[in-house]
Amino acid sequence: MITSKQEVNAIIRRARIARFATANSKAKPHVVPVVFAFDKEKYYLPIDGKTKTAKPEKLKRIGNIEANPTVALLIDEYNEDWKKLFFIMVQGKAAIISKKNGGNEGDDDERLLKLAHKLLYAKYPQYQHVDIGRLVIVIYPQKTIFWSMFQEQ
Amino acid sequence: MITSKQEVNAIIRRARIARFATANSKAKPHVVPVVFAFDKEKYYLPIDGKTKTAKPEKLKRIGNIEANPTVALLIDEYNEDWKKLFFIMVQGKAAIISKKNGGNEGDDDERLLKLAHKLLYAKYPQYQHVDIGRLVIVIYPQKTIFWSMFQEQ
Repeated sequence: MITSKQEVNAIIRRARIARFATANSKAKPHVVPVVFAFDKEKYYLPIDGKTKTAKPEKLKRIGNIEANPTVALLIDEYNEDWKKLFFIMVQGKAAIISKKNGGNEGDDDERLLKLAHKLLYAKYPQYQHVDIGRLVIVIYPQKTIFWSMFQEQ
Repeated sequence: MITSKQEVNAIIRRARIARFATANSKAKPHVVPVVFAFDKEKYYLPIDGKTKTAKPEKLKRIGNIEANPTVALLIDEYNEDWKKLFFIMVQGKAAIISKKNGGNEGDDDERLLKLAHKLLYAKYPQYQHVDIGRLVIVIYPQKTIFWSMFQEQ
């Protein structure tokens, strides 16, 4: 049984992928796989150079966050041994940060964007070849649920 | 590049896990991993005997569907080779079907529930040991999006 905050953090650090759910103002859900970084407090999701069906600003997830910043992020791993199943679901508020023209170094967005890129470059060597982009979604968690098959009830 | 309906169906049939997003009436997203079956038209998600934090009827996903039947289901597989990434997202309406007391055999819910259980038993040998439960979520797709790293734009 895994329950300590430390162990939950270890699962989050190890995870290579998460699934990101948003909803538009009419409560229509949207969910996509995302790479992410975690600074032990906030989550960072790049809008990177992996093929997108739309320009960054036109992506559904971005439009949804602008209309409704309440989001959910899921970290889990499937296992055919169902006794080993677990998941972590984070619900929180999302904000979009971007490189601003004329923004100064002390700017909070610039600082967060630099941190996000640093963490993402360190976690994903793929970014040596894939453009990391200029937008990052930041998730400020409000609630983190940990579930496992053998949790105590 | 995978794009034909047949190939998308093959991915869906192969997938052992999906991620299921709902939203409550205030558009707050909720997302969990789910096992599922697919009859080439509708998706069936059991509310089974895997440990739940609440009784079936009290589960957040059930409450959300009752308040707002619009849902999304994601099928994807992570790969460190990002050129191999893909996902399928289904948006649609969900309904909850259950064994009714006094329902007769010809009842549509009873028929769907039987089909769902049959498909799920065939797909997941785990149900020889785990209770499949008496509620199933049915998703009626309205839109299916296929994305892959190398899709044509």
